[in-house]
Amino acid sequence: MVVQERVQIQTQDRNTYDITNRVVEVISQAGFTTGICQLFIQHTSASLILCENADPTVRSDLERIMARLVPDGDPLFDHTMEGPDDMPAHIRSILTKMDLSVPIRQGRPALGTWQGIYLWEHRTHPHQRQVMITLYGE
Amino acid sequence: MVVQERVQIQTQDRNTYDITNRVVEVISQAGFTTGICQLFIQHTSASLILCENADPTVRSDLERIMARLVPDGDPLFDHTMEGPDDMPAHIRSILTKMDLSVPIRQGRPALGTWQGIYLWEHRTHPHQRQVMITLYGE
Amino acid sequence: MVVQERVQIQTQDRNTYDITNRVVEVISQAGFTTGICQLFIQHTSASLILCENADPTVRSDLERIMARLVPDGDPLFDHTMEGPDDMPAHIRSILTKMDLSVPIRQGRPALGTWQGIYLWEHRTHPHQRQVMITLYGE
Repeated sequence: MVVQERVQIQTQDRNTYDITNRVVEVISQAGFTTGICQLFIQHTSASLILCENADPTVRSDLERIMARLVPDGDPLFDHTMEGPDDMPAHIRSILTKMDLSVPIRQGRPALGTWQGIYLWEHRTHPHQRQVMITLYGE
Repeated sequence: MVVQERVQIQTQDRNTYDITNRVVEVISQAGFTTGICQLFIQHTSASLILCENADPTVRSDLERIMARLVPDGDPLFDHTMEGPDDMPAHIRSILTKMDLSVPIRQGRPALGTWQGIYLWEHRTHPHQRQVMITLYGE
Repeated sequence: MVVQERVQIQTQDRNTYDITNRVVEVISQAGFTTGICQLFIQHTSASLILCENADPTVRSDLERIMARLVPDGDPLFDHTMEGPDDMPAHIRSILTKMDLSVPIRQGRPALGTWQGIYLWEHRTHPHQRQVMITLYGE
């Protein structure tokens, strides 16, 4: 059995957005018990990550280390058409990935206690992001 | 066909642990010939990687570059509740990923000659880690 | 339904190689409508990424940031048997991953408008690279 659904996530700025509940709903509505939930963001300047979901400083620290490793406006970059966050957004997305697969067990994503599923917007302006969810299993 | 199994890996310290044989066994016991083996670690401070499996200095070099990119005890971090390796462990896990999919071919993981599957413990103390293995195919 | 095919990609030097059309062909010939296309490179010194496919400076900038983060010939590395690009190639591959899953929708990879699938060769000399493609769905 394969079920596919596209969800839209509106972002406000460079930030992490918890989409765990959206994923839980899609799996539940499709009626899957066991299998895989594959997430895929159809963009090159936002990514999908698993992150600690209890302390918000984890995600602000994550933002700061990435800003250090791949600084906005770095003179290294030629691709600056859409501003100082343009090329860093592409690099951040490649380093943290646009595809993510999570097992489904007993009708739910088999996440650890402290794991949440986040969309990470790497552009500093709002965007409407498309995430394709493909479920397979039984 | 979908088969799911959870394996436990006891880690001793920050290090890489070869789990290739465990994966080979799970595929073999489930009787799969062709398909995908999806691995998922249910934690946010350890990750799953493919790495060169012949020369141990590859993995010690890997440890050192990561220590340079994301130093323990860096004053950048606010999330330090569990010690200087706490936040670096989260970042290392996100940069090297908690999900990994490997094709199954002729009843075995279709790894290249020099590829091994490793659990990378990013905390400096021992942990019991849960890895969910989901097999699908035929 | 599961279909598996191995494709060979000849690389010339350290560079990104667009393999999107190869993937489109494999899906089309196998006759899949909906599902997942899983790509897996059977090496530890080349990787598979999704990248912006319109402006080539994105990929040259990507090369330059990686050269800064993980410099060839860095005295940090012990694993230098095959030259100054040996260990950096392993690290780049781990940071950008050897496995990649893309949803199949309406018989094609469900990529965003600006997404291309690239093999990233991290060695400075030519190599013949094996990419296993596993399709499942219907």
